[in-house]
Amino acid sequence: MSRIIEIDENHIWHPFAPLKGGWPIEEVERAEGCYIYLKNGRKVLDAIGSWWVSIHGHGNKKIAQAIYDQTLQLDHVIFSGFTHAPAVGLTERLLKILPSNQEKVFFSDDGSTAVEVGLKMALQHFYNKGINKKRIISIEGAYHGDTFGMMSVSGDEGFYSAFKDYMFSVEQIPFPNGENDSEVIAQFESMVASEEVAAFVYEPLLQGAAGMRIYSKETLEQLLIIAKKHGVLCVADEVLTGFGRTGKHFASLHMSTQPDITCLSKALTGGILPMGITTCSDKVADAYQTEEPTHAFYHGHSYTGNPISCAAGIASFDLYYTKEYEEASARISKKHQEAVERFSKHPVVANVNALGIFFRMEIKAEKAGYFSDVRKAMYDAFMERNLLMRPLGNVIYILPAFIIKNEELDMIYDAIDEVLALQGVSQ
Amino acid sequence: MSRIIEIDENHIWHPFAPLKGGWPIEEVERAEGCYIYLKNGRKVLDAIGSWWVSIHGHGNKKIAQAIYDQTLQLDHVIFSGFTHAPAVGLTERLLKILPSNQEKVFFSDDGSTAVEVGLKMALQHFYNKGINKKRIISIEGAYHGDTFGMMSVSGDEGFYSAFKDYMFSVEQIPFPNGENDSEVIAQFESMVASEEVAAFVYEPLLQGAAGMRIYSKETLEQLLIIAKKHGVLCVADEVLTGFGRTGKHFASLHMSTQPDITCLSKALTGGILPMGITTCSDKVADAYQTEEPTHAFYHGHSYTGNPISCAAGIASFDLYYTKEYEEASARISKKHQEAVERFSKHPVVANVNALGIFFRMEIKAEKAGYFSDVRKAMYDAFMERNLLMRPLGNVIYILPAFIIKNEELDMIYDAIDEVLALQGVSQ
Repeated sequence: MSRIIEIDENHIWHPFAPLKGGWPIEEVERAEGCYIYLKNGRKVLDAIGSWWVSIHGHGNKKIAQAIYDQTLQLDHVIFSGFTHAPAVGLTERLLKILPSNQEKVFFSDDGSTAVEVGLKMALQHFYNKGINKKRIISIEGAYHGDTFGMMSVSGDEGFYSAFKDYMFSVEQIPFPNGENDSEVIAQFESMVASEEVAAFVYEPLLQGAAGMRIYSKETLEQLLIIAKKHGVLCVADEVLTGFGRTGKHFASLHMSTQPDITCLSKALTGGILPMGITTCSDKVADAYQTEEPTHAFYHGHSYTGNPISCAAGIASFDLYYTKEYEEASARISKKHQEAVERFSKHPVVANVNALGIFFRMEIKAEKAGYFSDVRKAMYDAFMERNLLMRPLGNVIYILPAFIIKNEELDMIYDAIDEVLALQGVSQ
Repeated sequence: MSRIIEIDENHIWHPFAPLKGGWPIEEVERAEGCYIYLKNGRKVLDAIGSWWVSIHGHGNKKIAQAIYDQTLQLDHVIFSGFTHAPAVGLTERLLKILPSNQEKVFFSDDGSTAVEVGLKMALQHFYNKGINKKRIISIEGAYHGDTFGMMSVSGDEGFYSAFKDYMFSVEQIPFPNGENDSEVIAQFESMVASEEVAAFVYEPLLQGAAGMRIYSKETLEQLLIIAKKHGVLCVADEVLTGFGRTGKHFASLHMSTQPDITCLSKALTGGILPMGITTCSDKVADAYQTEEPTHAFYHGHSYTGNPISCAAGIASFDLYYTKEYEEASARISKKHQEAVERFSKHPVVANVNALGIFFRMEIKAEKAGYFSDVRKAMYDAFMERNLLMRPLGNVIYILPAFIIKNEELDMIYDAIDEVLALQGVSQ
């Protein structure tokens, strides 16, 4: 056992991993492009953007240079009373691609804080206006993070049993699965009819942790229209879906009804550094345009607006916002659609679909969901094939960087085919 | 108005600032050492470590180089199932200086998430063991962050009125102010006597946002001894007090009773990049040493263990953990103690004291607390003197980088004297 692995085993507590009986830890030495190079000499293809963050591949030299230059120029400064070109430059760029009603940009440190801020902005909006709207609605299976507030808003698949007494009440509508959509819409309409609902928090078009499951844009459009009719603020959690992954800059752009609040992280810095951003419309912000001190938004983190993360965000944006990436997105999407065809009749596949550069496939398994037995077996089988896939229970998905090549995608699809065959045998 | 300021005013929502009628925004162009250089040509001495994060001053070349090299080597990788030298290297270093019982290291993105993780670790510890301990105690005036969980644990000075319905119940003991300490200890003892208290969350020795107010290490020692006697897990929020600022590596090291859980951020990366870390003893972690899937700790952030932030942390540690910084700390502390003498009889000073490199002084004001009227007037008066100070209500404080020079400290004390004179006139 290497010294690194030994210290790791003794002292590092990894996220979403048991302290005992977990998966073996692999030591990563370096990463470049779509590949992760392990200490043991293996070269692993990163098919999931290192947990959904990486869109340019690893070790991008332009981003590295931007980070270095920024660190020497202005590493960090308090963001209350001060501003700087990196924060403004990133803001300007985001406003080019966000839903057109988004006007104000609030910085934080990650996806959880971005959605915490989004929800707080919505709730205090009504508080400031003296309007008694306090109920919150989310969608079953939601995942918005693991802080106490976000555990409350997320669905609970057994992750949060220890914390139920500390979670506030959030009502959930069923996931619109294509068969129940009209009932879901009707249920939502009856829930908001009381005019007491402040916020609807949702992952637009695709729920990540629930298994990358995709739902109908027509249904979401209906939900948004109903929400708007009843003065419910719509908080779009685009932490996962942002930056071209659904085929548009943001998933919210598939609908013509715009969200009131948008939450960003993950690909925001290209997959390099932590940062969260929450944006909102002037309609939301107007309730804060007052000199009454108790109506200000008292939220902040020490590293809010960190210039280095902003510089990474700018460099990432300038790589992303190009004809080249638009073409890459279309190319990957086409490959995924062909793969959907390829696997659609496979005997162990329950269903398979794709949206933009997301590809996902649900495997027939005795136990579905995150704790499905097939998860670990599939993870290992992919790692044996030098592929970093991380099935969500019985769901296999691909979420590549835009620079992935067609042959690399083919390699992934072929590996899936092989792993499905093993799966067929084991059933 | 510059283009940067114009875009900022129209689109950026700053933390802890009203959207209307706030303080004027200054554009920062660059920063170096203890100085922030404004676009308008002014050079401002950063006397508060850019909101309590910077310990080496700005633009440190060693840290910049470490960040650059790391970005090219391994920018980021999923931290579940994988590990890397930067995370292990930082872990090893921290274990050298943390309270000796701290054994496990959990990474997150900021101070709020570090304490959210610490509290969750404590609560689930008892859940896993099937022990019914659910109550939480903190100290009046506490500040642990602005996420829903941390708002619940923090004191509320009017910041969180809009969110009361979403906060869980936390009991608070009064701040031990030197006069009430024995009552506070007795009250704490009676609160924990029921054996129902899971966690005591506290800023050791010094409450930051409450006005950098310092309390007795003997009193805290008593509280910790009582907590341990009743099986209460002690969660030390060292986000502000960590890394030598109280004269020891961590404020907890002033007591002989050790915390069970320690939460770090701010100076962790030297003031350069966002990162949070929560550490715990094996006693805490033991409840998680099980293969029961629902007893794992399901918490994670995408950028958990980010190698670049870890590299900044390592470079920062190696600068910090030196004879040179130990001497700087003693030097600054001595200067502060002399300044305490200098100001102790000043007619507008209610009280003045220092701890390590913290210096703080409470000004006599009609309205005390964060919303004190003198706050803005003092901020402006210091900025006119090219000094970044950010009074907490009627409290002036200094929290410098370790590289600050004696003449710069003298310049700050002299400016305080001038501002106090203005204050004297205005009363």
